[in-house]
Amino acid sequence: MQRVESEIARLIQEIDYDEVTRLFEMLSGGKRVRAKLILKIAEKSEKAPLLAAVVELIHAASLLHDDVIDESLTRRGVASVNAIHGSKTAIMLGDILYSKAFTELVDFDKDVAKVIAKSVTELSKGEMMDVKIAQAFNYDEKKYLDMLYLKTATLIESASIASALLVGKDAQKYAIYGKNLGLSFQIIDDILDITSDAKTLGKPVMNDFVEGKCTLPYIYLYHDLDKDDKNKLQNLHAKKHIDEELIWIKEKMLQHGCIEKSFALAKKLSHEAMQAVKEDVELVSILQTMIKRSY
Amino acid sequence: MQRVESEIARLIQEIDYDEVTRLFEMLSGGKRVRAKLILKIAEKSEKAPLLAAVVELIHAASLLHDDVIDESLTRRGVASVNAIHGSKTAIMLGDILYSKAFTELVDFDKDVAKVIAKSVTELSKGEMMDVKIAQAFNYDEKKYLDMLYLKTATLIESASIASALLVGKDAQKYAIYGKNLGLSFQIIDDILDITSDAKTLGKPVMNDFVEGKCTLPYIYLYHDLDKDDKNKLQNLHAKKHIDEELIWIKEKMLQHGCIEKSFALAKKLSHEAMQAVKEDVELVSILQTMIKRSY
Repeated sequence: MQRVESEIARLIQEIDYDEVTRLFEMLSGGKRVRAKLILKIAEKSEKAPLLAAVVELIHAASLLHDDVIDESLTRRGVASVNAIHGSKTAIMLGDILYSKAFTELVDFDKDVAKVIAKSVTELSKGEMMDVKIAQAFNYDEKKYLDMLYLKTATLIESASIASALLVGKDAQKYAIYGKNLGLSFQIIDDILDITSDAKTLGKPVMNDFVEGKCTLPYIYLYHDLDKDDKNKLQNLHAKKHIDEELIWIKEKMLQHGCIEKSFALAKKLSHEAMQAVKEDVELVSILQTMIKRSY
Repeated sequence: MQRVESEIARLIQEIDYDEVTRLFEMLSGGKRVRAKLILKIAEKSEKAPLLAAVVELIHAASLLHDDVIDESLTRRGVASVNAIHGSKTAIMLGDILYSKAFTELVDFDKDVAKVIAKSVTELSKGEMMDVKIAQAFNYDEKKYLDMLYLKTATLIESASIASALLVGKDAQKYAIYGKNLGLSFQIIDDILDITSDAKTLGKPVMNDFVEGKCTLPYIYLYHDLDKDDKNKLQNLHAKKHIDEELIWIKEKMLQHGCIEKSFALAKKLSHEAMQAVKEDVELVSILQTMIKRSY
């Protein structure tokens, strides 16, 4: 990972604008899940650290814009760039990181560059769908999962494909791995928003629903409720809740096994992912750790 | 130009999201200066219409983000996307157009793709500098012109270089042409903000200075004023003005020939551009028309 961090630092230096260097240094790098994945899949390729750096810059840019769009004031436990420096700075910094990443992509083989570039369009489409879907109560599971795939899984999927291409591995298998890893990761994140506590999350509990996001447990719950309770749930959508309301939702979810059902889907997807790359012990263990995570 | 419009329409269709198609159709295409330039320089290349479409998508994306950052409510005489659909939609649509353009760039030769991709980083840096410079009264001509080069000339410069590369023309000459065309176009735009009227501009007169932007005539004026008037001018920076104040600035500019001096620089740059490509009659005539434009 040291080589990835050096590559990232080099690319930021090449942007050649002290303001950008200063702002970028203030970002938390996060867990670098995508970079680690790329290094694992393409460890024999000399180009893996650069690809990992490029994908991490794209990911950082997408989070910068994401936080502006969601008006999030924190990111990875610290204040977001938009919270400290304003939305404008976050937009501009995101644009700079995106374009620098794309400039570096040009040096890769066309199929590698294309799959990564394409996934950025998918991810931006996903962001737009996410905002659109949150405008009303959504109880359509397929619609939700399609959006989730675009918004949170396509970049991991394309990073896996691109890494496989770098070393001549079977891209199809790694596509399944990346896609399902991304999806199950996000489903677990959505579950933790409900089951965890504010301190661990670094934000209020059940905040997704307040923001209008009907994640899987809410979708499952809706279908299991009777007509009156359906109405009650819909009326709570995209509003701040008092404790009784939170308790009501959680109790109903417990009663109908909505968390378990969501977790079962995450596990099913993870299992498919592990099957796809079963000969690759380290990739399997990444998923096992993820499924177990409690933050 | 019909082929460019078809290519743009095809790329938008390929994004495959009705929301994007609908939003994009509402944008005014503008004068398509960059596309026309590319077709003129690279008219013998089959790839010129696609390159032109890619550059116009990048330009459209940059304007979408630009309007969010400048909080502009109009663009090309119509309401901006951020004014109608909000900043979030403008950011997301910009990201989608940028990434689609980059995806298409991958199909070009590396040197062509690289020069365009790189200029997007420069243009985003220029945007950041523009915002930063506007925070205080700036009387540094070089600093202003460096920002102007990045923000408004690099994309035209890179489009000219890329087109020249497509047909094996001397890229260096076309680089000078594109850069100087971009710079002198913007300097004239800055002059018109002062000398034109609100109806022709589609926005209030002398709005740049209200927004904190010290364009060339203001920079020249500052250096020509005595100490008291320097203070007076600085105190008017980034504020809404009453008529007397506007008249005072304009009179002082007239007295010190600041508009003429700015126009002289635009003409000098245009002249250098024409010299660089003097064998290319059509390119010379584009510049002549531009210098004469009164909107």
